[in-house]
Amino acid sequence: MSQNSQLKIIKIGGNIIDNPGALESFLEKFSATMGKKILVHGGGRMATQLANQMGIKTQMIEGRRVTDKEMLDVVTMVYAGLINKNIVAALQKNKCDAIGLSGADINSIQTVKRPVKEIDYGYVGDVLHDSVNVLSIKKLLEAGFVPVFSAITHNGNGVLLNTNADTIASALAIALADRYEVSLVYCFEKKGVLRDVNDEKSLIKHICMDEYEELKNENVITHGMIPKIDNAFAAIEKGVDSVYIGHALNLHLFQNGSFGTKLTR
Amino acid sequence: MSQNSQLKIIKIGGNIIDNPGALESFLEKFSATMGKKILVHGGGRMATQLANQMGIKTQMIEGRRVTDKEMLDVVTMVYAGLINKNIVAALQKNKCDAIGLSGADINSIQTVKRPVKEIDYGYVGDVLHDSVNVLSIKKLLEAGFVPVFSAITHNGNGVLLNTNADTIASALAIALADRYEVSLVYCFEKKGVLRDVNDEKSLIKHICMDEYEELKNENVITHGMIPKIDNAFAAIEKGVDSVYIGHALNLHLFQNGSFGTKLTR
Repeated sequence: MSQNSQLKIIKIGGNIIDNPGALESFLEKFSATMGKKILVHGGGRMATQLANQMGIKTQMIEGRRVTDKEMLDVVTMVYAGLINKNIVAALQKNKCDAIGLSGADINSIQTVKRPVKEIDYGYVGDVLHDSVNVLSIKKLLEAGFVPVFSAITHNGNGVLLNTNADTIASALAIALADRYEVSLVYCFEKKGVLRDVNDEKSLIKHICMDEYEELKNENVITHGMIPKIDNAFAAIEKGVDSVYIGHALNLHLFQNGSFGTKLTR
Repeated sequence: MSQNSQLKIIKIGGNIIDNPGALESFLEKFSATMGKKILVHGGGRMATQLANQMGIKTQMIEGRRVTDKEMLDVVTMVYAGLINKNIVAALQKNKCDAIGLSGADINSIQTVKRPVKEIDYGYVGDVLHDSVNVLSIKKLLEAGFVPVFSAITHNGNGVLLNTNADTIASALAIALADRYEVSLVYCFEKKGVLRDVNDEKSLIKHICMDEYEELKNENVITHGMIPKIDNAFAAIEKGVDSVYIGHALNLHLFQNGSFGTKLTR
């Protein structure tokens, strides 16, 4: 794999998108990050605000948005339109040659509408193992463009689907690991995995799989972080070189190797 | 120029976008159109509807939308989000490898905020002679992708701007005429330029520049069509091979040379 060129896939969530000053600062740091890169962004509160303004009710079940047809239109407008295009324009200002994408564009991510069991989540797309169109995304990367993904995908039959942004980031990372040495970077509101959740100085700089088991046994890593880290190690087992978890505004620390917590095999 | 490959740039307006059945049918015909192609779409009534639903007032001056910051967000959501992504998903369904773009994406169209004279149109972008990034758009075309432009551009300094879709189509056609033999196709609600505006059978199949002067002198072509055809001939004078004006749902007639009215030098 070592002959493959490096690719960073960086995911930001609602906490940074909802804060214009922080988003601007992050996008400057992202633009300054060297090498091939992809940005994946979540949605934040704007979709709920727009839905409220339009008189559309937001229904959440276990933290997940129920997406009926009206809500699908709202998230398409906000995620793939307002947020995506403003991020792209800001990156272009910083001389980062961004191209905004949904999963429908160049058929980059084709998902399957979540089957209705106890709960009907509506227009929500689940990522399958062959959801990512590696060949077409590679064409954009090799042309020197920087893909910026919103969390809207499609089913290949003309229907857009709302999809979890974390899942998109890890699916892209796993699929592209065949062609690139991929670092997957999850940005959140903490400096990384902390020994003491209330002490930002207690950052754990590196965790390998064996250490992760120990940290769980010692209750250093608890419920909130476990699904995130489980998903990270699952991506590593499927070929992703490393996963980083850290604060969006620390992205500049990536260059000297001191960004957040690094997870490796 | 004859060694250049052919490129069709096809522009559709609000009349077809506001009619889901007609749009679906048009997109099938567009997908079946052979060779390199670009789609440019206008907005239709949806932006005004959304603005109403959000309690934002729409202000039109001489048929042009005044775009304050709130309205800019609305048109960005509707044009670059809802309409663009649904068109892309429908094209992908038809195996047309579409990629939705605003002018910010790959810095494809960089415009200048219209100077305030008697009227402040707000966030409206004017296309200049070097607005189009030919090199980057060519990369997408040569990769086999089909660009689908919404009428949102940017100023290169992080600001999105609302731009006239007809103008975008002709600017793309003129700029790309250096590299391709460009046919610019304006779709509207008539079969083409008619000798008698009430008789669809009176289609004029071909008009060259000299004939156009005659038709104006004879009052066959009058006020409504004159700006459209003036712009068409201006594009031809700047290197565009031919301009077609016809009905969106007749696009399949393009292949056998019987689509609408053809304008040439």
